[in-house]
Amino acid sequence: MTRERAYFEASTLREHGRLSPEHTPEVYHFDRAMSLMGMRYIEPPHIILRKGLIAGVEYPLLADHMSNYMAKTLFFTSLLYNNTTDHKKGVAEYCANVEMCRLTEQVVFSDPYRVSKFNRWTSPYLDKDAEAVREDDELKLEIAELKSMFIERAQALIHGDLHTGSIMVTPNSTQVIDPEFGFYGPMGFDIGAFLGNLILAYYAQNGHADQTNDRKAYKKWILKTIEESWNLFQKKFVELWNKHKEGNGEAYLPDVYNNSNLLSLAQKKYMTNLFHDSLGFGSAKMIRRIVGIAHVEDLESIKDASKRAECERAALNCAKTILKGRRQFETIEQVIEHIQSFDRD
Amino acid sequence: MTRERAYFEASTLREHGRLSPEHTPEVYHFDRAMSLMGMRYIEPPHIILRKGLIAGVEYPLLADHMSNYMAKTLFFTSLLYNNTTDHKKGVAEYCANVEMCRLTEQVVFSDPYRVSKFNRWTSPYLDKDAEAVREDDELKLEIAELKSMFIERAQALIHGDLHTGSIMVTPNSTQVIDPEFGFYGPMGFDIGAFLGNLILAYYAQNGHADQTNDRKAYKKWILKTIEESWNLFQKKFVELWNKHKEGNGEAYLPDVYNNSNLLSLAQKKYMTNLFHDSLGFGSAKMIRRIVGIAHVEDLESIKDASKRAECERAALNCAKTILKGRRQFETIEQVIEHIQSFDRD
Repeated sequence: MTRERAYFEASTLREHGRLSPEHTPEVYHFDRAMSLMGMRYIEPPHIILRKGLIAGVEYPLLADHMSNYMAKTLFFTSLLYNNTTDHKKGVAEYCANVEMCRLTEQVVFSDPYRVSKFNRWTSPYLDKDAEAVREDDELKLEIAELKSMFIERAQALIHGDLHTGSIMVTPNSTQVIDPEFGFYGPMGFDIGAFLGNLILAYYAQNGHADQTNDRKAYKKWILKTIEESWNLFQKKFVELWNKHKEGNGEAYLPDVYNNSNLLSLAQKKYMTNLFHDSLGFGSAKMIRRIVGIAHVEDLESIKDASKRAECERAALNCAKTILKGRRQFETIEQVIEHIQSFDRD
Repeated sequence: MTRERAYFEASTLREHGRLSPEHTPEVYHFDRAMSLMGMRYIEPPHIILRKGLIAGVEYPLLADHMSNYMAKTLFFTSLLYNNTTDHKKGVAEYCANVEMCRLTEQVVFSDPYRVSKFNRWTSPYLDKDAEAVREDDELKLEIAELKSMFIERAQALIHGDLHTGSIMVTPNSTQVIDPEFGFYGPMGFDIGAFLGNLILAYYAQNGHADQTNDRKAYKKWILKTIEESWNLFQKKFVELWNKHKEGNGEAYLPDVYNNSNLLSLAQKKYMTNLFHDSLGFGSAKMIRRIVGIAHVEDLESIKDASKRAECERAALNCAKTILKGRRQFETIEQVIEHIQSFDRD
């Protein structure tokens, strides 16, 4: 891969830092020729969120912080806030981050659905499950739609890799790092990455439970965090929309969407579509972490392969059904119930 | 507007000319600094298609030619044929044609749905109809979705203004001109422009009928042309897809979409979505020609204002119902029936 990805990492950090400085580390200096970046040192006791989720640490402000970050970075880089001229300028610039996009296309939307030497899974336990993914026509029809949306739809400047390994936390602070996959893509890809990785963390808990800690309370906290993350995101995003409805955003001009009932209907429709996109991308991200090239430590750290496979199978089956049936979910609470129904603990 | 639009006209002509030389005039020379283009003189007896439609001239090869042009230009500039790198390079370049995109956004997706000094209609006959468009919340929710798709979705290098005034014809030749609105946008915008303008031509015929020619046979020919244009387009587009299914297109990799049943399901889904997009954009184009700034000669040339308003009202009501209910149509034949049901002749 080219060093140019450092440029897009710095650019996205700067742009997101301008919009959500409380959750984005500051870039002090970037030298494009040298691919050299000086940025804030995210000091201890910050750790990678994924490590905290494996250790069973609760972060009471995580949903609040991440919903802030996502609402601001996504809203302010979309056509709800920007005019078309600014939007297309951004789109054009980030088109050059194509190598990173192609990597995502391959590992998220292609390899898990075909025989590939890069794929791996907990064998032999999941051999049949991996094969079933590769032979599931219904799943492949859905993934095609998401893949095309990922490449074609320049909805907002997204982080592009917003899993729980790209977030550093303390109980009081949440810092989003590593946006080298940043480009103008569908908002649901970021939201889904975050939620999908929380769901993976949930299913991994049965593998981390032991006699001293059955992880039941922690699993409840994860589910509450998933629920609050979406609900708070939705609330804050719509609040930003209402606050800036008289602004320059091209998508919903104030003299067209000129009564509160109509605007509210438009927002409901927009958020419903975004919810379904997020569920689609989120479940695609889960699937690829179980039968694709790169796995997550949440599950990898479960040493007993048969126990690990059991957790993975539950996550995989949950993800497959969400991907196929995502348009039937109306609320995140329904998704939470669905997640629990696959948990055989 | 800047002179840069000449650059995008020349670029699109060259790219479409490479893909469909039989229906695109050759560009001999383009000088960007001077905005100077030397291109093929489209010789008599070629006339603008719209003039022919007003005169009641049949073009037996029109559907065949236009379906050729649309299938080739849209397929070969999409992710069904191209890899992501080439696609994003094209997207980035045409992002700079933003002035023309903004003009379309305003006149097609915004002005007809708000009070604007640019709007006009056959007054006083259509005063209430124009007002009803501006107060139709359901319509405005649909147009918001299409507007966002127009700006955000880089599906293919589209002509961007493919109405019947951008096509020159003889009974044996069809030449598409004036692609200065060219950019990477949704395919349905081109297909819809062509079909929508044919539907407008259909509704104008009652205004052109006289004692020597009741235009009934001609109306049938227009409907047949609409039907064949879509059906032939669909057939040719899928044929191109099948022919190049083992190629470099990123969207449907051969080792993922690896059985003919699955590929056929994927194609059916893709074409259904494209059909609904085309109906949506086509009806939006019809509406703007009746209550927006720029009207069409088909209707403008009807001298009797009350008769003109009657034709326009039928077209407007047809368009509104198609826009709102487009996802219920499964075939173009159902659309044809729907068009006829608003024709009170």
